[in-house]
Amino acid sequence: MVTTRLPSAGFSITIRIAVTADASSIGRLTTCVGEAGAIVTALDVVDSDPGRVLVDLTCDTADSTHADQVVKNLEEQDGVDVRKVSDRTFLLHLGGKIEVSSKVALRNRDELSRAYTPGVARVCMAIAENPADARRLTIKRNTVAVVSDGSAVLGLGNIGPAAAMPVMEGKAALFKRFGGVDAWPVVLDTQDTDEIVNIVRAIAPAYGGINLEDIAAPRCFEIEMRLRELLDIPVFHDDQHGTAICVLAALTNALRVVGKNLADVKVVVSGAGAAGTAIMKLLLRQGVGDIIAYDRRGALHRGMADMTPTWQWLADNTNRDNYSGDLPGAIAGADVFIGVSAPNLLTGADIAKMADKSIVFALANPDPEVDPREARQYAAVVATGRSDQPNQINNVLAFPGVFRGMLDVSAEEFTEEMALAAAMAIANVVGDDKINPTVIIPSVFDSRVTPAVAAAIRATVKGTPAPHNAAAVPQAELDQAPDEAF
Amino acid sequence: MVTTRLPSAGFSITIRIAVTADASSIGRLTTCVGEAGAIVTALDVVDSDPGRVLVDLTCDTADSTHADQVVKNLEEQDGVDVRKVSDRTFLLHLGGKIEVSSKVALRNRDELSRAYTPGVARVCMAIAENPADARRLTIKRNTVAVVSDGSAVLGLGNIGPAAAMPVMEGKAALFKRFGGVDAWPVVLDTQDTDEIVNIVRAIAPAYGGINLEDIAAPRCFEIEMRLRELLDIPVFHDDQHGTAICVLAALTNALRVVGKNLADVKVVVSGAGAAGTAIMKLLLRQGVGDIIAYDRRGALHRGMADMTPTWQWLADNTNRDNYSGDLPGAIAGADVFIGVSAPNLLTGADIAKMADKSIVFALANPDPEVDPREARQYAAVVATGRSDQPNQINNVLAFPGVFRGMLDVSAEEFTEEMALAAAMAIANVVGDDKINPTVIIPSVFDSRVTPAVAAAIRATVKGTPAPHNAAAVPQAELDQAPDEAF
Repeated sequence: MVTTRLPSAGFSITIRIAVTADASSIGRLTTCVGEAGAIVTALDVVDSDPGRVLVDLTCDTADSTHADQVVKNLEEQDGVDVRKVSDRTFLLHLGGKIEVSSKVALRNRDELSRAYTPGVARVCMAIAENPADARRLTIKRNTVAVVSDGSAVLGLGNIGPAAAMPVMEGKAALFKRFGGVDAWPVVLDTQDTDEIVNIVRAIAPAYGGINLEDIAAPRCFEIEMRLRELLDIPVFHDDQHGTAICVLAALTNALRVVGKNLADVKVVVSGAGAAGTAIMKLLLRQGVGDIIAYDRRGALHRGMADMTPTWQWLADNTNRDNYSGDLPGAIAGADVFIGVSAPNLLTGADIAKMADKSIVFALANPDPEVDPREARQYAAVVATGRSDQPNQINNVLAFPGVFRGMLDVSAEEFTEEMALAAAMAIANVVGDDKINPTVIIPSVFDSRVTPAVAAAIRATVKGTPAPHNAAAVPQAELDQAPDEAF
Repeated sequence: MVTTRLPSAGFSITIRIAVTADASSIGRLTTCVGEAGAIVTALDVVDSDPGRVLVDLTCDTADSTHADQVVKNLEEQDGVDVRKVSDRTFLLHLGGKIEVSSKVALRNRDELSRAYTPGVARVCMAIAENPADARRLTIKRNTVAVVSDGSAVLGLGNIGPAAAMPVMEGKAALFKRFGGVDAWPVVLDTQDTDEIVNIVRAIAPAYGGINLEDIAAPRCFEIEMRLRELLDIPVFHDDQHGTAICVLAALTNALRVVGKNLADVKVVVSGAGAAGTAIMKLLLRQGVGDIIAYDRRGALHRGMADMTPTWQWLADNTNRDNYSGDLPGAIAGADVFIGVSAPNLLTGADIAKMADKSIVFALANPDPEVDPREARQYAAVVATGRSDQPNQINNVLAFPGVFRGMLDVSAEEFTEEMALAAAMAIANVVGDDKINPTVIIPSVFDSRVTPAVAAAIRATVKGTPAPHNAAAVPQAELDQAPDEAF
């Protein structure tokens, strides 16, 4: 199992140290830090005098405990005086990670009178007379509300709205960085389904789309369903649809690599929550051979007691042989294992009992269902959600392009057709000349991904393709003739 | 009365014209436009061939009808071919006026793992363990929600949330431009008081302050009061408090100019809505001599029927002589007239009956209660809300600095003490060497205003002064010693 944490950039610290100025002193610092298991990433001289040097040593550590140990080891060195320790992650978060900027200059009275009173009044009246103009004349053209009640944040659980903010701000930063979308965090101090639905309905006029995030199952299903009925803008729950899109994209390519067809494979999905349910629905839509859904209470099967409506639907539509045993038994002979559940559920020995040329997606974060290093000894293709392993399945591949495309065509809803189109677009970024068992999905930094996804989304809305930079093309308000060649 | 609209930048249009290329053709264009009453502000040659020139002529017009007339006049000229007419105000609004930007670089995996998973999880847990850290580690440090239900937008009335967006976006742009505050528009598709209160309470975790905007009286009073009780962040209704602060600042300086004391003057306030009520409360707090509150139903007096609680309070606390006549009768002999109501209520002859060295603030927008040009013939000091008149009383003087100051000290509420401090700070920006009857209030572009207001606000919160750029000063998370001189 992946139990020993490796140093990572998420635990980068900067240690300010005063040390005697002899030829070997700085080398002794880096040796000390290295021997403590941390990785030095930067060394900067801050100040000096004839006898001493003040340096900032930056290193990746494994976690807070490890960071404390590294500092302690340094303090025990002769001639070393630790002045300050800064956590780069926390430093980066001071004052938050996003900001609001004006797109219009406000340098003088003239500019004020176009952007604000009195000129702005005419724009308001235009929208009052023609509400559809809101999508053209306001930020509704490009905004997405990132909505969460903080009830299911990452692997942290129910931490509430205030504590969820760093994740939601990060999401907004990713929306802008990768999709050019203006996303704003809307965290809610309530976990009541009716209240959440009412609040999102009420705030919707400012937005071109809603991204639900980190809202616990099963409430997320009802919230999404009711909002989809109420609103004329798309409602997308990234934990469901983003994950399902990326899993389908990766699976499509993994099947390409091993030479199997989706219609012939047996898939076991561990975790029948938001992500697992959405994955399974999408696979069924694509005509998967068979699925067994596995959760804490066991394999979902017909005859199981105390079922939520969603679980009953899954039991009725999956598990051809009505299997009701344990997880290792479920994956024996299966072609694909997809885990969106919890760590340490399977071992290499279990993976060995899967079908030949098996595919394993162990996506529990931060520790997967099975150690990928063990799984790789038996499976043909292995993927996780971790950034330090090959084949990282990361929702950043999907949501920026999906919303970019939907906003560009003023989509009124997110459809299953869009999910499939997005998945295929992501999969096809990996060309036949590049694909192999350790490259079944593009990197999030591959600049071809978002445009491809956005284009695929736009194409699903008949008759309304728009250029990627539609927002940047001004249109004269009172055109009397098109721009003719002179 | 100010009935003939003058051309203004708020109605600027750009007309693309093809015209025969002779020496006088362009001069004829500008003459034609000038004779139609518009003001040419720019002329740019776009293209040409041996026989013709294509020009973009930009001019300020008075309103849409006037713009249409100007274009029509041009079309009737020989050798003139109008190709396109663009409204600069509408062009500026395409896609909205604000955007969300990331403050953190997201160029590679390392940066992603600090700004997002896995590093962000530690920041979430820190806030979960210590909720006060939200003000330090999230955008709550610097955010204000600009909340409106669109029920009282500018002079347009109840146009609803979508149509209110251009004003709210403009407000957010002003917050950033003048106060460095990250403001976000929160327009609500409901006008129910309970719902509005519940929604704002639920969204509050992301914000350091709430700015209520363009919500009709009397609902705005109850909404503000209930939110002040519920929230631990400041709640500020700009139409009330911003206006009151700016009026008090201007009045303070006007009294300086005419040499009168507030305690000795009789003030008539026309308009007992949100703004008027707040103005009167602030004046009473400052010890004004006497006030008569005037509204559509007449002068508020003791014994008047069918009074809202607010109006009854005003009747009980103003109008020493219980005057119940008309408005001209009310201002006869009064020292100060403050209008926050409707156009064309008074004439110069009425102003002439005021006390010697009278002060007239006619703030109804866009057309004031009395023509300022007439009023100036009789009053010593005249102010309006118009940008084309001297002494513009503009709320932009107050709200950016008020929130800048409150955010810097993590204020939990907006107090009357803060209102007074802000008003005095604005007034004092106009030095004794600069003050005169046409300069009683600074320009919104005077860069001394916001810092002065913010400093005054901060000073009212005991023991917690903070530098203006507090948000920009990083603090090490695990300081072991302060930065000593080396």
